[in-house]
Amino acid sequence: MPTISEKGKLIPASPIRKLTPYADLAKAKGIKVFHLNIGQPDIETPEVMLNAVKNIDFKVWAYTPSQGYTSYREKLATYYNNLGYNINASHILVTDGGSEALTIAMLTCFNPGDEVIIPEPFYANYSSFACLADVEVVPILSTIDTGFALPDIGEFERLINTKTKGIVICNPNNPTGYLYSKQELLALKALCLKYDLYLISDEAYREFCYDGNEFISPMHFEGIDEHVILIDTVSKRYSACGARLGCLITKNQGVLEAGLKFAQARLSPPAVAQIAAEAALDTPKSYFEKVVREYTGRRNLLVDGLNKIPGVYCPTPGGAFYVLAQLPIDDADKFCQWILESFSYEDKTVMMAPATGFYSDAMAGKQQVRLAYVLRQEDLTEALKCLEKGLAEYPGRTIC
Amino acid sequence: MPTISEKGKLIPASPIRKLTPYADLAKAKGIKVFHLNIGQPDIETPEVMLNAVKNIDFKVWAYTPSQGYTSYREKLATYYNNLGYNINASHILVTDGGSEALTIAMLTCFNPGDEVIIPEPFYANYSSFACLADVEVVPILSTIDTGFALPDIGEFERLINTKTKGIVICNPNNPTGYLYSKQELLALKALCLKYDLYLISDEAYREFCYDGNEFISPMHFEGIDEHVILIDTVSKRYSACGARLGCLITKNQGVLEAGLKFAQARLSPPAVAQIAAEAALDTPKSYFEKVVREYTGRRNLLVDGLNKIPGVYCPTPGGAFYVLAQLPIDDADKFCQWILESFSYEDKTVMMAPATGFYSDAMAGKQQVRLAYVLRQEDLTEALKCLEKGLAEYPGRTIC
Ligand SMILES: Cc1ncc(COP(=O)(O)O)c(C=O)c1O
Ligand SMILES: Cc1ncc(COP(=O)(O)O)c(C=O)c1O
Repeated sequence: MPTISEKGKLIPASPIRKLTPYADLAKAKGIKVFHLNIGQPDIETPEVMLNAVKNIDFKVWAYTPSQGYTSYREKLATYYNNLGYNINASHILVTDGGSEALTIAMLTCFNPGDEVIIPEPFYANYSSFACLADVEVVPILSTIDTGFALPDIGEFERLINTKTKGIVICNPNNPTGYLYSKQELLALKALCLKYDLYLISDEAYREFCYDGNEFISPMHFEGIDEHVILIDTVSKRYSACGARLGCLITKNQGVLEAGLKFAQARLSPPAVAQIAAEAALDTPKSYFEKVVREYTGRRNLLVDGLNKIPGVYCPTPGGAFYVLAQLPIDDADKFCQWILESFSYEDKTVMMAPATGFYSDAMAGKQQVRLAYVLRQEDLTEALKCLEKGLAEYPGRTIC
Repeated sequence: MPTISEKGKLIPASPIRKLTPYADLAKAKGIKVFHLNIGQPDIETPEVMLNAVKNIDFKVWAYTPSQGYTSYREKLATYYNNLGYNINASHILVTDGGSEALTIAMLTCFNPGDEVIIPEPFYANYSSFACLADVEVVPILSTIDTGFALPDIGEFERLINTKTKGIVICNPNNPTGYLYSKQELLALKALCLKYDLYLISDEAYREFCYDGNEFISPMHFEGIDEHVILIDTVSKRYSACGARLGCLITKNQGVLEAGLKFAQARLSPPAVAQIAAEAALDTPKSYFEKVVREYTGRRNLLVDGLNKIPGVYCPTPGGAFYVLAQLPIDDADKFCQWILESFSYEDKTVMMAPATGFYSDAMAGKQQVRLAYVLRQEDLTEALKCLEKGLAEYPGRTIC
């Protein structure tokens, strides 16, 4: 029998999906499961976007240019310029989701064995994309007591060596929800210039900033055009995760040219998604205002509710739709499985993501879980109740 | 300035796209360009497929399972079983086009430095997917005088060494249109069993077999379940290239499990495309009969027309919608550029793919071009006229 590749063994399985069989079993027993485990929002996709799908009028569902439709890229450029990014269509490579943009960035910017520093906890699939490109992820710990703020620049410098070629940030952050400040980003800019590092800025959650905090991107800064790679996606912005449409944006011509070759190899990003996303750029401001209001309400409810549970601590994040909470438990993986497998409260339970999947060091996330507030407030209230009751009953509880 | 990766330099640029600026210039001069250069058919997508897009009724455009919707995979399994493949939904990994299926196959089956044998001329992007996975492509020459039949198995055996881990075939073939016989495929089966090689069968053009020839797949054979990886796509089958939907099918559990991990990293294949492709499985037989009739007529017209041009030779291929023709020219790249840049006949000209892009040895395809019969017969007739007149005028003509 022919053998599987080493990479096929090494690439991590989705840590969240390991729990799916337990959720399925719970459902089979008639238990309602609140899914706070994944970033699949319940928010409706903008009508203008869905209508564009319904109104397609081509007869041949043809390939689009490998870099994306020109009309879409031009309108996207306007969207980014309205954010103050100062780019044009030629800087945009349209991709199959932010996932492909990240993959192309890894393949284009880094050689096998190169190191890339990522503040942890981080989005678990960064490890997978890095594995695909044989890139070493060097984590740098951000901690719950600072609300997962950017670690000291001195810490970064201690990790930098001749193999270090880039830094990846996710802003606002998944899984922590942390929104980086202008100061933090300026410090990263200086660092990347000093050591000639790529700064890959994953802005999947850009639209979701709360409490009136301004969103700042490295794309706002001058003097680092060659270093900044922006990763974006329509998945969360328009609650259109299934469209599979993202982009890579940079002014670095070498990255653009090499990235285009990877894009040409896979021929084309999806056509209907581009038509829809182009239309989605006309989504009224009121849509986002409503969504941000909704998420703010959910975040407040969730953070307050969590902090009221004895032994639980959860900082208040400034963006995205995740919180990372500290629980009084022995082992997040065991607890998240137990609450699905062996627990229910009024025939309900909750599915969460053990934070171990977001840390390189398995110990670091052992008492933390990520909750995505992708359900309405009534459901979040019930889910909180389940969590509270579950924690009280859990045999592996560490304090009382 | 940070540097680009080696892979970013190595991955080949699309050879066909190099000609695009010349086609654009010709059009700017008011010249009509017949595009026989790419596999983008003019055939209409089945109505049942487009209607499924227009009739989407979800409110949240959500991620689908990483392996694809269950309902789609089940219905797909029925389609394949009707072809005699004997599979079930669990053997199917739905992908972002055949392109992603090929990428996942390369990453999953082969280690860096492994060798994979591919009969050449071959689909140029195989080199890109192999490059991405650091796999060596070892070409084995098929020649125009046999109509690009499978090279002798003895030739394969001469190329096999300890690094050889697989064979890729495209059937019917792009760029040659050659349809492999049952005998040829049985010989490959025996070879793969003897040396424990993966047999990757790219069947993107399965529906397009002519002259009543039966399509045979390694999936029809018993005893090589662990070795066969089927690559498929809806791109050509339903003229739905922009849907970006394909699949990888195998009974090899190791490949399935590792492939799923790569699929989980990128989260989900496109949702609307899956809904549409599921509906497309109800495309009436008459649609394919009509398409095959249409392509047969075009092929006959093109092959006859080509062979009537002095100094031109073109075998009659049994499938797909490409022909590879031998021309009396010094250099196919120069000629394909010249006919766009410096020639027109009654304000028309033709764009073709130089065959050099399909051979590892630049010399091998120097006198050959690939023509895709993706235009209606009237246009093909005019394109042939342009080619004939162009060849007569071309300064680099080798014989008269
Ligand atoms: C931080 C981050 N980046 C990128 C992605 C990839 O999203 P997509 O491929 O759907 O655009 C996600 C999805 O959850 C994410 O959370
Ligand atoms: C032989 C072959 N395989 C695979 C593909 C990839 O097609 P897609 O990614 O559109 O499914 C193509 C496209 O032209 C092809 O010709």
